[in-house]
Formats: sequence, structure tokens, C-alpha cells
Amino acid sequence: MHSRFISDNISSSGSRLLFAGQDTVRLAEKYGTPLYLMDEAKIREQCRTYQSAMHAAFGSRYRVAYASKAAAFAHMARIMKEENMYLDTVSIGEIATVQKAGFPSERIYFHSNNKTDDDILYGLRSKVGYWVVDCLEELESLNRLAALENVRPDILLRLTPGIDPHTFAAVATGKVDSKFGFGIETGYAWEATKRALQCENVRLLGFHCHVGSQVFESDVFISSAKIMLDFIAKVKDAFGFSTQQLDLGGGFGVRYLPTDPRPDLEQYIREIGRYITKECAALGIEQPVILLEPGRSIVAEAGMTLYTVGMVKNIPGLINYVSVDGGMADNIRYALYSAPYTVLPATRMDEPFTGHYTVVGRCCESGDIIQPNVSLPETVRRGDLIAVCTTGAYNYSMASNYNRLPRPPIVMLKNRESFIAVRRETLEDLLRLDV
Amino acid sequence: MHSRFISDNISSSGSRLLFAGQDTVRLAEKYGTPLYLMDEAKIREQCRTYQSAMHAAFGSRYRVAYASKAAAFAHMARIMKEENMYLDTVSIGEIATVQKAGFPSERIYFHSNNKTDDDILYGLRSKVGYWVVDCLEELESLNRLAALENVRPDILLRLTPGIDPHTFAAVATGKVDSKFGFGIETGYAWEATKRALQCENVRLLGFHCHVGSQVFESDVFISSAKIMLDFIAKVKDAFGFSTQQLDLGGGFGVRYLPTDPRPDLEQYIREIGRYITKECAALGIEQPVILLEPGRSIVAEAGMTLYTVGMVKNIPGLINYVSVDGGMADNIRYALYSAPYTVLPATRMDEPFTGHYTVVGRCCESGDIIQPNVSLPETVRRGDLIAVCTTGAYNYSMASNYNRLPRPPIVMLKNRESFIAVRRETLEDLLRLDV
Repeated sequence: MHSRFISDNISSSGSRLLFAGQDTVRLAEKYGTPLYLMDEAKIREQCRTYQSAMHAAFGSRYRVAYASKAAAFAHMARIMKEENMYLDTVSIGEIATVQKAGFPSERIYFHSNNKTDDDILYGLRSKVGYWVVDCLEELESLNRLAALENVRPDILLRLTPGIDPHTFAAVATGKVDSKFGFGIETGYAWEATKRALQCENVRLLGFHCHVGSQVFESDVFISSAKIMLDFIAKVKDAFGFSTQQLDLGGGFGVRYLPTDPRPDLEQYIREIGRYITKECAALGIEQPVILLEPGRSIVAEAGMTLYTVGMVKNIPGLINYVSVDGGMADNIRYALYSAPYTVLPATRMDEPFTGHYTVVGRCCESGDIIQPNVSLPETVRRGDLIAVCTTGAYNYSMASNYNRLPRPPIVMLKNRESFIAVRRETLEDLLRLDV
Repeated sequence: MHSRFISDNISSSGSRLLFAGQDTVRLAEKYGTPLYLMDEAKIREQCRTYQSAMHAAFGSRYRVAYASKAAAFAHMARIMKEENMYLDTVSIGEIATVQKAGFPSERIYFHSNNKTDDDILYGLRSKVGYWVVDCLEELESLNRLAALENVRPDILLRLTPGIDPHTFAAVATGKVDSKFGFGIETGYAWEATKRALQCENVRLLGFHCHVGSQVFESDVFISSAKIMLDFIAKVKDAFGFSTQQLDLGGGFGVRYLPTDPRPDLEQYIREIGRYITKECAALGIEQPVILLEPGRSIVAEAGMTLYTVGMVKNIPGLINYVSVDGGMADNIRYALYSAPYTVLPATRMDEPFTGHYTVVGRCCESGDIIQPNVSLPETVRRGDLIAVCTTGAYNYSMASNYNRLPRPPIVMLKNRESFIAVRRETLEDLLRLDV
């Protein structure tokens, strides 16, 4: 495998880049650019890898929920239904999306740090399976509205274990100063548990935590599992409450660059499983059903974005630009996080990558950079096709109409065929909200 | 005026915040939250301030073009038509929007660093008045396609004067290493001018430059005018080409914080005008028609966003959070640029602002911060209304459906009345592209 091919679904044939075995040049001709591609087999493979690793670690007492905020659209929910996944949703927009696709409500977990009363009513009437309660305000509203709706929802409390996951600040969510959840150190987790057990119209099932994103070590999960299990043991002692579900969140890393490590999910999960089994025995508690909520690691490497080059500019001694027909409107992650990406010349794979370029977008903004320091053939020119790898997560889901650009379609690649899962926005779509 | 009221369209009455003289609490009740408000009188006032200052400086030989990327929707284009403005557009999406609103094509300037051949054909068939050509690839395509369409478009060349506008990197666009335009220092501007004069199917009218955003000094514009006029004089000597239009771009600063300076547009423009008149005489060139392209400074202070508080969390000794029902999906500017904003407690204006909070959004991401270090009453709680000021520019235009959140509506405030200019997205809207 070419050293620049960060995932096994990327290859080349002569000058042309292949993705999921399909010719990217033909796909660009058929569907236009910019274009999001998604490799359905890779998505399913990742679901199955998690499930088999979890099964090996925990027998039948596990669940894997896809964190749909990474990429939420109807066809994705259909895949998740077929793969027997659960879903982590964060808004009524996501719930509406997955329900449209026929995803079973009872397999939905409803997250979010700020559910309005309207959101809560929507969730109750949609009969979502589980609520991940983030704050006391939500607990009280849910308890009150559940009574009005004559239901008794199952809830987990989101706790903050106080872990710094060695990842960058914007995606570190489990630290004690997080906006999310009830801190264990601060005593809020204890108070919230007491209150939840008093609430007559909700049924406490267990606890959730999430430490961050792009985590490449199992020790982060083990550290948070330790803190959570200690809490669970104390809660059992104090209140006689037996925790049925422990949700450790998501955050397993994916490869953006060829130099990134290749995470061994099976091994991480085996280590986490061994630790939890041993620790539960030591603490004398029944092992809860263990949940993971991967998002990025299910879909990121299943995604690729294709662009057409519009301009090449060499500023001698300073910088060379390749400008493409998309940009921060369809992939804001470099502008927002300085996120790394691997960029490939989809129409010149057989040439030496001896030129050095900053790949920029078409938005009228200097910060509209897809990726700096990219090696491409020096022959690259207007009309060439450029591919950005690992764009399956947090690209379409964060896309905007900045500069009034229509959002690209998502084309699924499956069994040597391709089909549209999300259609391209039109100028009429852009205007539909304007009065 | 309250020291926290950064613009004269903000006031309070008892506990309630007023915007453009209207009660924000009633507006939130009527239209829901999150909600973008826009003060139409302020937009028109800014247009007129620019025009009268330009008239005083340049007589009738000036044009003011609103940079519609700051906020592009149909009603805005109607205002610009009524105010006799020109428009700076950056995409066919913007052109479609303003044309839907009946804005005259001949008053449109078509920018963008990356126009595809399809964009160029769309622009030619839309009969946009002026093209701002950013690179040689565009010049050649335009020349070729204009011949096919049997038209001869009027063009300006975008030049890079090599100015560092003392502003932050993401919005500095006029430096020599910019992705935009033809560098004067590199000789590309000279070559492009020569080539444009040879192209039979375009008509060169003049030159454009833009040095950056949030500029608070006229000296930046004067420095770039000097470089541009020197170039214009040399081009006249060498090619006998008489420049008809000189577009100095936009970038005048607006107030986000009470500590920001209050820019004196009239004075800046007077100083720029004096300089240009003197310099043209000294260089022995006819003074071209002078253009400015303000975007942010036309609409930013005309905008305010209203949110409802969902959660308040105090983490003793560390941080206090107020979480609102919007966030980086409707205002990504703090996450993206660490942009400052003034935040006001719209339902508690008569209480002391003695609490210190980080105002965060509802997206499942730690970086979803509206603004840190905000002073608000310590009584703030779920159900309260929070206002973020100066959100008229680059808020709606950069909005996404991240976390599958529907985009808020834009409600115009005018003559003590309110009306919807952009309607709120619905769950059906979110699903419309999914196959």
C-alpha cells in the first residue's frame, strides 16, 4: 500500500485515485464536485469490529451506539439499523432524521447539554429509549413533563470524571471544568443521583461519561472506568442502587495522516474489558451493561471529498496555492481546529509529488484553508481533481452555506456501485427560506 | 447610554432589553429562540453614511458596494436596491439571491478567488455588471466563454498590494502571500494587466484590492491607495491605459465590545479622499471612480441574537456556565476566531451584573463557546433570555445545521414593527436533502 494511503479503501490505478475500488474521476464526472464519497462497506466493517470486540470483552452485556452527530442522514440510520447498532442522538433534528429512516425509537439514546422543554416533549412523544440527562434543570423538566405525558422514561446521568484525555482543548469534554454533566469531584454527581432516585417519573438506569475525541490510548478509558466504577460502588452502598448501564462514551482516534498510529480497537476494548471485569469483582458490584458511543471512528475513514482545482498560484520564495471549488463551507475543520488531512492528486497519482502547496478553498476569506504543506505533483492545474481523505466525520455535519455555496451531495459507494444518499443543494434550496 | 450598550439602537426599560426600540422579550415570545434580529433603520443609516461621506470626498465619482457575504438574503438585497447601493457578490448563490429580490444585474460586482466555468457561464447569462478577476485561469476562461456567449464583460483585476492591515491573520487578505489576486511586488499584476489588455472579449476597467477586516485606521486604506495609484500611473505610462475604476475593498471595523473604538467613517473617508485627490494630481492621472465594499460595517451592529438559557452550572473555584439554546451552529465566530462579543441579560437588565460566566451553546462539543468572561446577574437561570450584540455580520451567513439544529429565522425590526425576512428552518427542511 502506498505510504500516503491512510486507509485500506484507498488505492490507485495508473494516474487515477480509487476509493472503495471505484474510479474517483468517473465519480466526479457523474456527480460533479465538490463531492462527498462514503464507503458503505467500511462503515459496516467498523460497526462489526466494535461489536465483535465488545462481545469478546463483555459477552452479551454490551451495546455500541453510533454517535450520529459525526454524520447524520437518513441512509446512515438505515445502515445502523441493519447493523443492529444503537444510536446516540443530540437533538430532535437527529431524532427526526433517524426515525424517518425507520430506526427503532427504543434503540435511541437522547443526549445534549441543553434540552429545551419542547425538545423534551418531542423526545417523550417520539418514545426514545434512553435519556442521557446532563443537568439538574433537565432532570426536573423531564420528571415534570413525563408526569404530564403519563410516561416514565429510562435515564442515565452524564457524569464528568475529571479526566484530561491528552487531546486538544476543543474536543476535551470529560474534565472537571467541562460544560457537560455532573462533576464527581464537585459532589454534583452524588447530589444528582440522589435527586434522580427521588424523581417519581423517571427511572435511573445508570451513568454516562465521555472524555474526549481522537483518543489513541485505552488508559484514558480505563482511568474513566475506574472513577465511574468507584462512584457506582459508593452509590450502591449508600442508596442500594444497582447500576444497570455504564456508558463510557466515544472518542477512539482515527487516522488523518500517514504518520498517525493505526488504532487497534480490538486490543483497546480487550484491555478495557479485562479491567472492568476485574474491578467490578474487586468492588463487589454486578458488572453493568457496558456501552461505547463511537462516531468519528465509525465513519471518518469511510469518507473522502473530491474537489476540482480552479487556480494554481506560485508566490516565489513564499507560498504556492492550489485553490479548489469547495472549502470551509464543506470542511471547516482546518480553519476551526487546525485539523490535519491527507490530500491526494486524484488525476495525477502516477507522478512524483515534488511540489509543495497550501490547498485553499473558494470562500472569500484568508482562513479558508483545507490544508497547508501538502505535497502534490508540480503539474497540478485548473481542472485537476483533488481528494481529501478521512472526511467522513464532522464534514457534512458541520457544513454551511457560507458565501451562499450549496452543500455537496453524499454519494455512497457499495458493491462497485454508487448512489446518492444526500442530494446536492440547488440554488432554489438556498432561496427557500427567504421571504 | 449604558456603558454596555455598544450601539445606539440598544437600550433597556426596567428589566427588559430593547433593540431598535422594541421589547426583546416580546419578540422572543412571538418568534421563539434562537432568533436573529436585524434593525433595518441601522442598515440604511450605514449605507447613507458611506454614501454621503463618499460624495463629500469624491463628488459623483464614487460607488459603494455592499459585500453581501456578510449577510445575504432576499430582503437585504431589496434594502440595497432601495438605498442605491452596488453589490459585491462572491458566488452564483449570492447572485441568484439578489436577483430573486429584483436587484439590478448591472449593479452587481462578481468576486471570488475560484470561479468555475459553470459559474462564469452563469454570471455571463445573468449579465452581472462587473467581474473582479482573481487569477489568470479565470481571465482566460472568461475571455473564452465570453466569446462563445457573444458578450464583452467589464472587468477589474484584483491586485494584492502587499499590505499587512494590523488585523488578525484569518481576515488579512491583502498581503503579498495571499491566496487572492495578482501580487504587485511579484510582477503578476503587471503581467495580468498586459494579458487583460490583449484579451479581445473582456474590457478592462480598473483594479480592485482589499486589505483585510476590522480595520480601524484610515492609514491602511491610504497605504494601499498609494500602491494602487502608483501602479495605475505606471500602467498608464506603459500601455496608455486609463483606469476608470479603483475599488479599495472593505474592512472598516465595527464595535463588538464597549472598549472597542467607535470608528468615524466620515473622517476616514475624508482623509482617504484628500489623499487620493492629491496623489492623482501629483501622478498626473485622471482620478478614477473610487469604490468601497463595506459588508460587516453595514450590517454587524444592526444585528442581535436572542437565546433562551437552558442550564446554569457553577463549578466552584473554576468556572460558571450559562448554556443557551443555540451556539456554534448559529454563531461560530468565537470558536473560529476567538471573536469578542457583548452579551446582555435581556430579562434582567435592572439587576447588577455581578456574576461571571462562560456562555456556551447546545452543541455536543467543548469548543461550542459563545463568549467567555461575561458579566451577568447571579440570578440568571433556565428560561431567561440572553442577547448577543453585533451579530448582524457573518452569523447567519456562516450558520450550519451542526448537531442537526435548524437555523434560526431573521426577523427585521422596522418602524416599531417586526416581520420575518428569513423563516426558521423546520425538521422537514433538515430532511429534504436525504434520500
